[in-house]
Amino acid sequence: MLDTRPSLHTSLSPSLLHLYDVNSSIVVIIDVFRATSTIATVLYNGASFVIPVETVEECIQIGEQTGGITAGERDGQVAEGLKYGNSPFEYPPDFIKGNTLVLTTTNGTRLLHMALEKNARSVITGSFGNLSAVCDYLVAQKQNVILGCAAWKNRINLEDTLFAGAIIHKIRDHFSINCDSSQIAASLYNEAKDDLFEFIKAKNASHYHRLQGFGLERDMRYCLTIDNTNLLIIYEDGKLVVRNG
Amino acid sequence: MLDTRPSLHTSLSPSLLHLYDVNSSIVVIIDVFRATSTIATVLYNGASFVIPVETVEECIQIGEQTGGITAGERDGQVAEGLKYGNSPFEYPPDFIKGNTLVLTTTNGTRLLHMALEKNARSVITGSFGNLSAVCDYLVAQKQNVILGCAAWKNRINLEDTLFAGAIIHKIRDHFSINCDSSQIAASLYNEAKDDLFEFIKAKNASHYHRLQGFGLERDMRYCLTIDNTNLLIIYEDGKLVVRNG
Repeated sequence: MLDTRPSLHTSLSPSLLHLYDVNSSIVVIIDVFRATSTIATVLYNGASFVIPVETVEECIQIGEQTGGITAGERDGQVAEGLKYGNSPFEYPPDFIKGNTLVLTTTNGTRLLHMALEKNARSVITGSFGNLSAVCDYLVAQKQNVILGCAAWKNRINLEDTLFAGAIIHKIRDHFSINCDSSQIAASLYNEAKDDLFEFIKAKNASHYHRLQGFGLERDMRYCLTIDNTNLLIIYEDGKLVVRNG
Repeated sequence: MLDTRPSLHTSLSPSLLHLYDVNSSIVVIIDVFRATSTIATVLYNGASFVIPVETVEECIQIGEQTGGITAGERDGQVAEGLKYGNSPFEYPPDFIKGNTLVLTTTNGTRLLHMALEKNARSVITGSFGNLSAVCDYLVAQKQNVILGCAAWKNRINLEDTLFAGAIIHKIRDHFSINCDSSQIAASLYNEAKDDLFEFIKAKNASHYHRLQGFGLERDMRYCLTIDNTNLLIIYEDGKLVVRNG
């Protein structure tokens, strides 16, 4: 029987993205700790939009041009010349509402620009905070999908793999999945789903150790919470904006 | 407390090998379906050595120079100009004993040559058939280790990931493992270990579908059997040879 469902693939590292047909696909950018979680939070809390940029220099320049709030970290600290960091807790509604954020992150924004350069059909951002909105959109679009994990300096990480698995867990019946990376992600999520934080802690995830060092356990627990910032976020004309699914 | 154990990392695809310090490490080449399983079988059945080569042309040329048996497949069929294929069942003792095999495969031999080009400290081949020999060697050497999965045209696959997980499962206490890919492989193996074949079949592994099409279920079951060709196989001067651990 002919399977007419769209395909779904998972790219577990930006170094693997070139293996997939980006230009016929919706690409979901996944950077759970913490870029895409913070982007969802900022927009949920009322920001007008987020401008994702690759470099600190660009961030400063575009901040000056637009009057946006500049943010980004390098090696776990606010980058020199920028005002704020990557933590979702830095952006409560009374601070961010009606403002724009210009954000640079090491892994997430780089992957986003890779997907754009390869002419992705569309680019959305995904995090546990907007899991359901992402899934609803992917099912409704009926297009091929690539789940793009930002990873850590191209090394595969647990948390982005787990989020890819969470998506697959919810929408697998709507897609033709002939992709071992997707099976691996779904298996991992199935093992971890009862307590994502404890799973990551037990597995000694590299991010856990790094972020823990900066006292960011609170960020991690927040970034592993499902649907608390449940909006569809799509890239349009240089900006990440909220869209109705 | 200072952790003085050597490191262990897993590279789930040749496209990720550059992320790891190959030149300070022993690299285990893993190509479960079927290159490294067949190499172990051929040597277990008495071949003098195996010469792994990248191209069909090289295979023919070196076969002529050495009088070795030429073997290799492209797209699941014996490559034009070669005599035999990748199946371990093609090499019973009465055929292969005392002979040499010149073997080209798409993924495994390419990864092996990548590891050599990056000056790996040493290169060994791993398969479920020689799992224990591989583990004993790695523990005894007390050197950094990279588990190198050959994957399928750079796409991560279940069977090589599972074998990396099987190694980690046995030797993790001897190594410092700060590597999420290794944690993912170990988790996957833990889920699959009671019946590797059924696990792969249930997950619709891309290899399962491809190999099934050529009626090779027997090969797959064989290649997932632990320690039936339990020899240490190491690369020396252009040849894969048996060594005492």
